[in-house]
Amino acid sequence: VRSLPGREDAADVAALIAQPLDPAETELLRGRLRSLTGTRLLPPILRPPKNVLCVGKNYVEHVREGAHAEGVKFEIPDEPIWFTKAHTALAGHEGTIPWDPEFTEQLDYEGELAVVVGKSGRHIRRERALDHVFGYTILNDVTARDRQQRHKQWFVGKSADGYAPLGPWVVTADAIPDPQNLTIETTVDGEIRQSDTTANMIFDVATLITAISTGLTLEPGDVIGTGTPPGVAWGSGRFLRPGSTVAVAVEGIGRLVSEVGTVTSPS
Amino acid sequence: VRSLPGREDAADVAALIAQPLDPAETELLRGRLRSLTGTRLLPPILRPPKNVLCVGKNYVEHVREGAHAEGVKFEIPDEPIWFTKAHTALAGHEGTIPWDPEFTEQLDYEGELAVVVGKSGRHIRRERALDHVFGYTILNDVTARDRQQRHKQWFVGKSADGYAPLGPWVVTADAIPDPQNLTIETTVDGEIRQSDTTANMIFDVATLITAISTGLTLEPGDVIGTGTPPGVAWGSGRFLRPGSTVAVAVEGIGRLVSEVGTVTSPS
Repeated sequence: VRSLPGREDAADVAALIAQPLDPAETELLRGRLRSLTGTRLLPPILRPPKNVLCVGKNYVEHVREGAHAEGVKFEIPDEPIWFTKAHTALAGHEGTIPWDPEFTEQLDYEGELAVVVGKSGRHIRRERALDHVFGYTILNDVTARDRQQRHKQWFVGKSADGYAPLGPWVVTADAIPDPQNLTIETTVDGEIRQSDTTANMIFDVATLITAISTGLTLEPGDVIGTGTPPGVAWGSGRFLRPGSTVAVAVEGIGRLVSEVGTVTSPS
Repeated sequence: VRSLPGREDAADVAALIAQPLDPAETELLRGRLRSLTGTRLLPPILRPPKNVLCVGKNYVEHVREGAHAEGVKFEIPDEPIWFTKAHTALAGHEGTIPWDPEFTEQLDYEGELAVVVGKSGRHIRRERALDHVFGYTILNDVTARDRQQRHKQWFVGKSADGYAPLGPWVVTADAIPDPQNLTIETTVDGEIRQSDTTANMIFDVATLITAISTGLTLEPGDVIGTGTPPGVAWGSGRFLRPGSTVAVAVEGIGRLVSEVGTVTSPS
């Protein structure tokens, strides 16, 4: 797309949402389609206008496993709990989650349905909320569980470089008429760790959009992570290790695969 | 600057940090300087690459007033506590902080020294940390105290549109050789509410840069709020009201003034 005249800035889907291709541009691109085989995908949104907006504790049984792991009282939130992940954490399909034992000894995955905003808005009413969705993708909300707990605020433990695998692509909203009826499954080295349906969200996608836009303006290209089902390593104690392969599959979207790598911290 | 050839994208200081003006460009601009009188200033960084990176509880006596207000044990953090504010919250000098009683009944100010990053880095060592500073400005970390408390995660209560007055300008680092020796003062309608020195930070600027860059990559144009001294309304119960004027002054930088306005929430 960047080779089209006047589209030098179309570095990611966010730019295309703001200014969609016209039919002539689509025609020009048709001859240049490349096979996905042998292609390395970047995150579909490289540079969302804001940090990735994420909600915590949005599936009852995940709230329960977290409360148990943390040793606190089990309480269902009465409003969505928001935190953010920096764009520098984004990674594409088949990317690498860094392994850095100096940063964390409790590297965890969180498979999530992610929403890509298509239309600006503030104080968005629930009935109109889904009109603001451009499409859906998959987020792995990678978490350094020990840092998350030590800081209480979750940003640092969830925003290290590579901690936000996103993709493989964005499926447009018309292809997913009901985002609350999708199976979601996370495997680690082929073993199922999370298996649930988005029907079990405490706050559904429309409610999340209404809630976050109460104070701030959502923009095209903003990405919203909708929370993770039960089955994270924090509950089982089986954290990710160097070389682990994590795959998050969401029905109707696809499968986002990441490998845990090795990095050497500068001393 | 935007009128210079090839500088159409220089919408804010972040773009100029990434690609500084050369002497010929400076010369071209010299004839176009405008008086500040009658000029409305935008925030000096319109679109930081990441959300504004903020640290909580970084002055001992502010930690004490917060613990008292919240009814929890007074504990000095042993690491900086990070959260973020969305760029949509940014406002310039003499801008308006929205008044929305449906969003908050406890509108609070937090005067802060803010750091503008000039050079990318990850795992930045403390001895080299200040080399990554482009300059300094002033942040008012406006907070909906009731929402901050209810959510526990601080993002929502601190990221509403208009909740991040920034400016009036950026003072380059060479003019502030020691960021830990600046008086900081916040007034509401002329009455001094916060009066302290940056010498009283628990974690100094260099330590903050080292801490946040342990996991993530800092980028030119990133803005870091360094925490607020004691004297916020949360402690006194004297929250901001429609029409209040808040001014945050930091020695060697200037004075950032905001007025609390009136907005009508759509019903």
